[in-house]
Amino acid sequence: MSDHITTTSAKKPLILNGFAMTVPGHVSAGVWRHPSDQSQNYTKLSYWTGLAELLDKGGFDNLFIADALGPLDVYGGSPDAALRSAAQQPLNDPLVLVAAMAGVTKRLGFGVTVSTSYEQPYLLARKFSTLDHLTKGRVAWNVVTSILESAARNLGHDAQMEHDERYERAQEFVDVCFKLWEGSWEEDALVRDRASGLYSRPEKVHPIHHHGSYFSVPDAHLSAPSPQRTPLIFQAGTSPRGREFAAQNAEVVFLGGTNPAQMRASVEAIRARAVELGRDPQSLKFITAILAIPAATEAEARAKEADYLAHTSIEAALALFSAWTGVDWAQYDLDQPLEYIETNAGRSALRGLTAKDAGRRWTVRDIAEYIGLGGIHPKFVGTGAQIADQMEALAEEAGVDGFNIAYAVSPGSFEDFITYVVPELRARGRLTPEGAGQTLRGRLLGHDRLGPDHPGAGFRALWDGPSVLDQDYRAASAPERLKA
Amino acid sequence: MSDHITTTSAKKPLILNGFAMTVPGHVSAGVWRHPSDQSQNYTKLSYWTGLAELLDKGGFDNLFIADALGPLDVYGGSPDAALRSAAQQPLNDPLVLVAAMAGVTKRLGFGVTVSTSYEQPYLLARKFSTLDHLTKGRVAWNVVTSILESAARNLGHDAQMEHDERYERAQEFVDVCFKLWEGSWEEDALVRDRASGLYSRPEKVHPIHHHGSYFSVPDAHLSAPSPQRTPLIFQAGTSPRGREFAAQNAEVVFLGGTNPAQMRASVEAIRARAVELGRDPQSLKFITAILAIPAATEAEARAKEADYLAHTSIEAALALFSAWTGVDWAQYDLDQPLEYIETNAGRSALRGLTAKDAGRRWTVRDIAEYIGLGGIHPKFVGTGAQIADQMEALAEEAGVDGFNIAYAVSPGSFEDFITYVVPELRARGRLTPEGAGQTLRGRLLGHDRLGPDHPGAGFRALWDGPSVLDQDYRAASAPERLKA
Repeated sequence: MSDHITTTSAKKPLILNGFAMTVPGHVSAGVWRHPSDQSQNYTKLSYWTGLAELLDKGGFDNLFIADALGPLDVYGGSPDAALRSAAQQPLNDPLVLVAAMAGVTKRLGFGVTVSTSYEQPYLLARKFSTLDHLTKGRVAWNVVTSILESAARNLGHDAQMEHDERYERAQEFVDVCFKLWEGSWEEDALVRDRASGLYSRPEKVHPIHHHGSYFSVPDAHLSAPSPQRTPLIFQAGTSPRGREFAAQNAEVVFLGGTNPAQMRASVEAIRARAVELGRDPQSLKFITAILAIPAATEAEARAKEADYLAHTSIEAALALFSAWTGVDWAQYDLDQPLEYIETNAGRSALRGLTAKDAGRRWTVRDIAEYIGLGGIHPKFVGTGAQIADQMEALAEEAGVDGFNIAYAVSPGSFEDFITYVVPELRARGRLTPEGAGQTLRGRLLGHDRLGPDHPGAGFRALWDGPSVLDQDYRAASAPERLKA
Repeated sequence: MSDHITTTSAKKPLILNGFAMTVPGHVSAGVWRHPSDQSQNYTKLSYWTGLAELLDKGGFDNLFIADALGPLDVYGGSPDAALRSAAQQPLNDPLVLVAAMAGVTKRLGFGVTVSTSYEQPYLLARKFSTLDHLTKGRVAWNVVTSILESAARNLGHDAQMEHDERYERAQEFVDVCFKLWEGSWEEDALVRDRASGLYSRPEKVHPIHHHGSYFSVPDAHLSAPSPQRTPLIFQAGTSPRGREFAAQNAEVVFLGGTNPAQMRASVEAIRARAVELGRDPQSLKFITAILAIPAATEAEARAKEADYLAHTSIEAALALFSAWTGVDWAQYDLDQPLEYIETNAGRSALRGLTAKDAGRRWTVRDIAEYIGLGGIHPKFVGTGAQIADQMEALAEEAGVDGFNIAYAVSPGSFEDFITYVVPELRARGRLTPEGAGQTLRGRLLGHDRLGPDHPGAGFRALWDGPSVLDQDYRAASAPERLKA
């Protein structure tokens, strides 16, 4: 059992994820133009094995890889701006990349974003089992439902599913996966005895008999159990339905934004809902993202920040912001002041973009410049000690357990973080201790498998013969299924 | 231009693929029980990186990875026998494995089996582009349509699509992929200029406007062009509709079976049909599979064969044979003599199982014992010279250009092949010459990209503005689309 769980002191380790995407650049719009950026090499194996080695040796817990499934074409109603400025375009597949990094790393986890909206759970479960085998239990799945209309359009839908329906499908999708991972192969199903010729015990490999609204998966899991069985479950998305999904399924929740009070409210709401669903509230961890620009002195860090800022692109920033908000920002004058942003997700007051900036009057240009470096995430600039202070303060204020560390340039920003910030965090007892666990879940949560309070663990009941879990899936709503 | 294409002498190089599957064992039923077999380690990264390194250094061109998408449950109407005897069960995903092997190899290609029946072309195209980038052009796609009812059942279909309809869907699937790979990004679309901030030229990245019977993909490819653009296209399946598909799409056709005369007939029929479709008949290569058991002397090789035979499993063999034929062989007495096999694909005379055995009277047990070692493929046992003789003779008689080399034990069978047979083949000028090309297609066909006569290359016309290819896909049948 690691300190993560039992210690309530302020000095518990912070989860450290490298935050990346299989694109040139990532959240820092246009900064691929900087002479030191190598993220253009995202198509090369050596770029990723180098990055993974760096993070693994540098004290990071995990590489968190974002994804999207369509062109970014809200800005100006076309993908042109995103293509011109490389705003997360072009875009490769993250899942087929992971195995390449497993061989050059010892403890680093790999958290891969895969949407439940366009895959089949029977096949995706096999993909994650395969990667969990190959990495010896170091894989996480960032479960998303996709926000892009452009993805739906290219994947067989005239328009994307309505928001809450996407989550209904997502819930059934992960339930099928949990059944395959947790409820299909018993612990002693695999024998592999050369003498008798018995490889698996059929009576211990259970068909899951799933017949739901979206999926029908009658048979057993194709893959034998992997070290974690279920990959560590990440989740991002804080709509009311997203919070419900997180409370039920997530082990690590990724909260975006810049407002610590809002984050804390999300943390508390999700934990409270998890308790209602029978989960240990401390079994859910929360992370948020930051951009860190550290250097030997604050002045050097500020100079570095200015240098990166000079390489940002307003066009790239607005292409990203348009995709994230669903608003075409090309229709506004750059100097137009804004009171609020009306998006698909409702009205957001701009005054609250950062706590420090409360009361500031934002123009479209201000937003683009803010997003240009580090996206919508807080930017910490200074010495290693200053940044460690800010991280500790944000973790305390927002109630989060760790961070996705975004970059301005890659791998330079990670090298700087490892040089200046990691030693500070280590000295403060903020790094996951050596030997904290062989699997990713073991390191972060103290146990290799889904905790017994996790709803997915309930599907282990399939081993014990027919139960309510084995009945017609459609007959029970999710909370009823959980309580039965 | 390699000798492959221009030389018509008998001494042209033979394509050499390692033949494997992400399972314990593979085509040799039950031989995972042999003390030297390590294929049980198929879940481990080191098993695959070791195998890939061995083949890469040992003169092989490619690792061909088979796949299936469901339990093997025809035999006895349940998956029990396949689970007990590890007849290609349990089963991991091959596509997410490939990147791990790229870093430890220099020239080896990776041919991965993926069915068109349960994936989305917009996403699968991105997966192959990503792997083609990471491997620097060493990826092949073995296009299959899936034969298992058990796959359909777990992937959202009450029963699988009718055979010819599977191929209709497959044709539209690969056409969408060809449009994305060949017709979307022009050669000079990618600029990546740090000074001007121009990454891609939007006017050179073309939406494919695909609206067909099965798929609607209006937008451009998400990934930038990879070294081969289109992965080398393998195809297996010799039904009439399968041959049509091969003639139109395949660059390397995998022919199963044991009868050279039947293989030659397939080769000639597919080449003839390719000519009608406007293709250079020599641009299609053909391979078949063999099991080779070489040793320093013929006596040692025979002893080795007997040792492997002692580890085969009749249950595993019949579980495999039942899945392949769609016939439940559990219903027959093992000693029942058989005249023919009535399968989904029609009646097969057993007399013709091997040319040598013409006239032999087969029982169910005979079939199981034959299949136990090397599956339905010819078995060559002897010294390196004897096996090289047999390979040359079969290539000549069947008109094929190379082989999938199956194993009894892995990696032992490959080590033996490299020790005893490869030097013979090299001495006879039968290995692909060093420096024959950086990409897999370059090495095997002499050019890195799809040849201009390949129908997929026709979709490059999208670059030149609207054309018949850009019109309503449903309006034209495949041959009309090609000729227009």
